[in-house]
Amino acid sequence: MAELHPRLAGDCLLLGQMPLSRLLLMNDSRYPWFILVPDREGISEIHELAWDDQQQLLTESMALSRAMSAAFRPDKLNIAALGNVVPQLHVHHVARYRNDPVWPAPVWGALPAKAYQAGQRAGVIASLRTHLGDGIRWVG
Amino acid sequence: MAELHPRLAGDCLLLGQMPLSRLLLMNDSRYPWFILVPDREGISEIHELAWDDQQQLLTESMALSRAMSAAFRPDKLNIAALGNVVPQLHVHHVARYRNDPVWPAPVWGALPAKAYQAGQRAGVIASLRTHLGDGIRWVG
Repeated sequence: MAELHPRLAGDCLLLGQMPLSRLLLMNDSRYPWFILVPDREGISEIHELAWDDQQQLLTESMALSRAMSAAFRPDKLNIAALGNVVPQLHVHHVARYRNDPVWPAPVWGALPAKAYQAGQRAGVIASLRTHLGDGIRWVG
Repeated sequence: MAELHPRLAGDCLLLGQMPLSRLLLMNDSRYPWFILVPDREGISEIHELAWDDQQQLLTESMALSRAMSAAFRPDKLNIAALGNVVPQLHVHHVARYRNDPVWPAPVWGALPAKAYQAGQRAGVIASLRTHLGDGIRWVG
């Protein structure tokens, strides 16, 4: 299994393993913010993945998107592969609301993360689990 | 054909039509910045597309990404479906460089666009055309 970049490991909680990607929760309670990290070594761009892996990443991204839409009823999803700071390929999925603190700006670099309280974090994870279905092996 | 949102029509130049998406060039010479707009009415999220359309969007996004990598040799591609301002589904593809004016921050909302000079714009388009292949009908 590819090692997680220290920045991802430090900022996020590992939630589970999908067929291709690990699912992380960003420890920022301002928005429900999940990250998919394809388990492949030395890849920074989606187009560097093999075609089958690109397909699987799309499948996982769409399953996560549908689950987030159902669980959190956002005004908009923001999906992005940036990687200017962390070169390991990872795809952000952020649930955005017209009344969130940085709308309509993007979340990256906008405000310092506001860590979850334990109970609040458990609630967000439970909501996602209800909607994400079986294509994931949950951690813990 | 779905009408382009006025903000996209105003900020961008239409370059061509792929099987699913229109290809636009953002009129901002700070970075080579292209946008795919799937030609479907009333869609704001990728997961709202039919599965075949999701596959085609991936195919077009990867073709564009490979062409941008070959044409512009960026340090990183930034690919994102945001849509907080323009609800019509559109997918940004931005070639980023460690010495570009906002690296490593995201480009959205960072700086006012710096319009292309005509010759400079023609050069960027010609570079992309050299690498994009046949899956597009060019305009003009």
